[in-house]
Amino acid sequence: MMNCYVIMVAGGKGLRMGGEVPKQFLPIEGRPVLMRSIDVFVQAMPDIRIVLVLPDEQHAYWQQLCREYHFDTPVQIASGGDTRFHSVSNGLALVPNGETDALVGVHDGVRPFVSTETITACYHRAAVDGAVVPVIPVVETVRRLLPGGGSRTEDRAQFRLVQTPQVFRASLLKAAYRQPYVPTFTDDASVVEAFGHPVALERGNPENIKLTQPADLKLAHGLLTR
Amino acid sequence: MMNCYVIMVAGGKGLRMGGEVPKQFLPIEGRPVLMRSIDVFVQAMPDIRIVLVLPDEQHAYWQQLCREYHFDTPVQIASGGDTRFHSVSNGLALVPNGETDALVGVHDGVRPFVSTETITACYHRAAVDGAVVPVIPVVETVRRLLPGGGSRTEDRAQFRLVQTPQVFRASLLKAAYRQPYVPTFTDDASVVEAFGHPVALERGNPENIKLTQPADLKLAHGLLTR
Repeated sequence: MMNCYVIMVAGGKGLRMGGEVPKQFLPIEGRPVLMRSIDVFVQAMPDIRIVLVLPDEQHAYWQQLCREYHFDTPVQIASGGDTRFHSVSNGLALVPNGETDALVGVHDGVRPFVSTETITACYHRAAVDGAVVPVIPVVETVRRLLPGGGSRTEDRAQFRLVQTPQVFRASLLKAAYRQPYVPTFTDDASVVEAFGHPVALERGNPENIKLTQPADLKLAHGLLTR
Repeated sequence: MMNCYVIMVAGGKGLRMGGEVPKQFLPIEGRPVLMRSIDVFVQAMPDIRIVLVLPDEQHAYWQQLCREYHFDTPVQIASGGDTRFHSVSNGLALVPNGETDALVGVHDGVRPFVSTETITACYHRAAVDGAVVPVIPVVETVRRLLPGGGSRTEDRAQFRLVQTPQVFRASLLKAAYRQPYVPTFTDDASVVEAFGHPVALERGNPENIKLTQPADLKLAHGLLTR
């Protein structure tokens, strides 16, 4: 198979968790979230090349954590940007330009519960379709806020919730990321879509939650201890 | 305050959990899900009147569980229907017609992590606005499936995910439930909305998850043990 990369984005300042330590570094059952996220990719694809995007001021802390946890998976480090778009751009710069048939996934560092099945399914599909995201159905009823106040029920069967890894052919992703940034770029699929390439959907795993709020950490402990 | 009721809907046959015991009866940290859901309402509103809607074939099992766990909260039992609409209708029949200013909440029995704050906020707001549902923002990127295949990114800021309890003035809810059933009635708010009454939104609590899949039970244990 062609070379496969994952750009692991961990830009969180951790403000929403209420603590001092950014959420990507918080330990769940004795191992930091970010290491767990990397572990799953290595388990799914042992030859994967890992690019970790971290805010500059966190690089030293990460190195310290690596020593502390004897974490020796080879990881290239890139600098976090002001937005997710800029962070991914910085990570993408570490993927060599010559490898046009390489596959590049982008994964939220705070999603340690992605399954190896989701990862391999997305990379395999990307080799065929060029662009793929894992999605899950919406369990809750969905309401749309209306201009001028009020809201109305929408048909939830029409919607999917998007997770990561979002996986792309390297040449496509690089070309898409040369577009000027606009705020509607909320994820990598929206960047590739704006570039004119359709995005295929692959089945995600429901427990692949994004750890963004204090309650999520409790959920995370539950996923690991049972 | 006027009389307050909650119709606790527990119609699940539990097929999706893969086990024999319907999910509303599964113990989390030693106490069945459904008892935990009822506990929170009693804690939030000690005088609340509880109507529990259960499939007929589960009534004896519930009574047995009540003895086993020494659960003595007064609960009126109604028969589950073929759809959620019919289950709620059956529960609503146990709310006296004369109490036009009573408030009636409808709650998923498999949402034991609703907070007392969410409950009291919804009942207070319903006393003013007549119809209210608790909602949370969407954390994930949202995609809409398009007719003929494909999908596109939507602006997630325009959407809210709806939880329970959904709370209404009794007279309004009863009138709305006299409409003939249509499949677009996915929750109580959609029934009341079809009747022509707007639905107010109140802030829900993110950990108020609906336990529908095996992974959800793991999450549930995490929420309780930390």
